[in-house]
Formats: sequence, C-alpha cells, structure tokens
Amino acid sequence: MPRWEHGSEDRLKTAAIELFDEQGFEGTSVVEIAERARLTTRTFFRYFSDKREVLFAGTDGLGTELVGKIADAASVADPLRLVVRVLASFDWAGLGSPNTQRRRRAVIDANPQLLERDLGKQHSVAVELADALRQRGVERASADLAARVGVQVFYTAYSLWIEGGGKADLASISEAAIDRLSTIMPKREPALKAG
Amino acid sequence: MPRWEHGSEDRLKTAAIELFDEQGFEGTSVVEIAERARLTTRTFFRYFSDKREVLFAGTDGLGTELVGKIADAASVADPLRLVVRVLASFDWAGLGSPNTQRRRRAVIDANPQLLERDLGKQHSVAVELADALRQRGVERASADLAARVGVQVFYTAYSLWIEGGGKADLASISEAAIDRLSTIMPKREPALKAG
Repeated sequence: MPRWEHGSEDRLKTAAIELFDEQGFEGTSVVEIAERARLTTRTFFRYFSDKREVLFAGTDGLGTELVGKIADAASVADPLRLVVRVLASFDWAGLGSPNTQRRRRAVIDANPQLLERDLGKQHSVAVELADALRQRGVERASADLAARVGVQVFYTAYSLWIEGGGKADLASISEAAIDRLSTIMPKREPALKAG
Repeated sequence: MPRWEHGSEDRLKTAAIELFDEQGFEGTSVVEIAERARLTTRTFFRYFSDKREVLFAGTDGLGTELVGKIADAASVADPLRLVVRVLASFDWAGLGSPNTQRRRRAVIDANPQLLERDLGKQHSVAVELADALRQRGVERASADLAARVGVQVFYTAYSLWIEGGGKADLASISEAAIDRLSTIMPKREPALKAG
C-alpha cells in the first residue's frame, strides 16, 4: 500500500460527511466521495461496502466492548450509572472529530432511513447491555430499564457534547445528565421528605 | 357497505398479525390476509396502503393526542411522570386485543426493518413530547431527557403488560416502572446518606 494511503479511511469518512452535509445523502455518490478524498473508488470499497456504511463503521465494536466492560465492572449495584459510564468511556473518535460527528448527526437526523438505522443500532446496544447486566445478576426488569434509560441519558449527553464541538469532557457531561435525571425524577423516599 | 363488512378493519388486523406470526412477515401476502379475514383484497386496500401499514395504523394519532394532553396538563413540575402517564392513558386497543398486540410485538421484533420503523415512530413521539414540554416552559435539556427517558420507561411497562396478556392495569404497571427507575437511580441527596 503506497505511503499516501495512510489515513485513507479517515479521509473518506470526512469527505463523505462533508458531502452528505452539503448536498444531501441521496445526492452524493461514492465517486464524488472518493474524488473529494483524492482517492480511488477502489480504495473506497476496500474500507466500506456502500456509502451508508461510512456513517456507521467506527461503532462496529461498540456492543462487544461495552458488554466486556459490564462483565469486568467492580460492581453493578448502580446499573444505570454504570451503563452511562461505559458508553461515555467508548472511543467515539472512530466516528471522526467532534465536529465531524456533529455533521454526521445532522446528516442522520435529516434522513428518516438513516435515522431508523441509527435507532436500530442504539436499540441493539441497549439489548446487549441489558443481557450483560442480567449475566451479572441484575434482575431482568431492572436490567432492561437501566439499559434502555441509560442509553437515552447517554445520547442526550452525547448530543450536548457534539453541539459544543467536543470542548467539554463527555464523561462530565454524562454525569451531569444523570444528575439532571435525578432532579426530574419524582421523589418518593420518606428519607427525603424528612430531610 | 354490506352489513358483514362491519369490523372489517379489525378482522384484517387480526388476520394479518396471525399470519405474520405463523409464517413470517415477508412470507405473507395481502391476498392471504384478505382470505383469512374472509374479505376481498379491494377491502384490504380501502383500509391499508400495504401489509406493513397493518402493523402501524392504530397509533397514527398517538403524537397529536399526547401533545394535546401535555398542553392541557394541570402541572409540568413532574415531567418524566407526566410523559409516562400520558403514554399509559392512550387507547392502545387500536392495535388490537392485548394478545394481538403481543403477537404484533413478536412480529416486529423478529424483523429488523419493522423494528427500525417502530423505533423511528417511538423516536418521533419522544421528539414531539419534548417540544410539548418546552412549550409548557420546561427547560430544553430537562424536556429532552424527560421525553426520551419517559418513552423508554413506558415501553418497558408496555412490554410487561402485553406479556401478561393485558390482565394487569397498564397505568399501574407504568407507575411501578417509574418507582423501579427511582430504585436504580444513584442516590446522591445528603438526606438519604443521613437517613
């Protein structure tokens, strides 16, 4: 592989997302993506099966990695926070710079089919996380709830993070989102009433 | 319209979901659905544009109705519980009996494209609910979180409800799901540490 092909995958991703953002996903061809990245279509197909994959490659290992982290966690006593934390600790740079991720998000939100695909991926991750929590002995209903809610809390934080250009720390924003959830939760514990 | 066509829409829904469940969504034709319902394909197309619509018609008015209920709510001080309650108060019978809804759910879960479509609908509802909360003066980040998390809490309860054949009350199961969420939430309030 010639030296100039170093970083081809990242260049293709950045070029694709720029073009999708500028002229729409449907209106962009693989040929244009390769041209913008100054690479051949042959190189494009070495990395991606089609133009849609450019948006979703980079999180392929997400489920497996998160499941591993749940399995290795010191404690699962705080399952919702654990789910949010393992998501926040993932290396999202595989989707490009925070700015590229923001543009990627805009492209996905503008196209119902891409959005449905993305929601399908989030759902699969929630199902895998719930299974991993059950493996650690968390009761089924609590595992489902922690996984499904935790994924939503994380993605709310993730949206704020990319909107802010990645300047703040994703882990801190995620912790703040959990704290915000506790402020909008109904308080029913007697201890709180007494306090 | 002849008298025997009374209830045609429900008969078509029930027939379709039975067939999808028995022989798969892809393997079922509109002709078979009409035959099972003892109606003509012409009648089928009077109610549904295609076989996929049979699964999703019946919740068409969901977003609009929920938005109206948020607008009319006495208070939005407890936004997460409000979201769960308006969802639980929707008339889900438009999707058939609880048993039909359970079979419908199994059909959707077995087909990635149907699942993505369903997740897209849930997401649209969350976006509409978040907008409605903001209209009522709830801060954006809290509105987003209450809507996204509330939808997940509700669907966790809804799954338990259809699995139980609709015997228990959906509203009660939903309240129990909110209570469960508060038990898996990290407790950070000083009052609890002291308690």
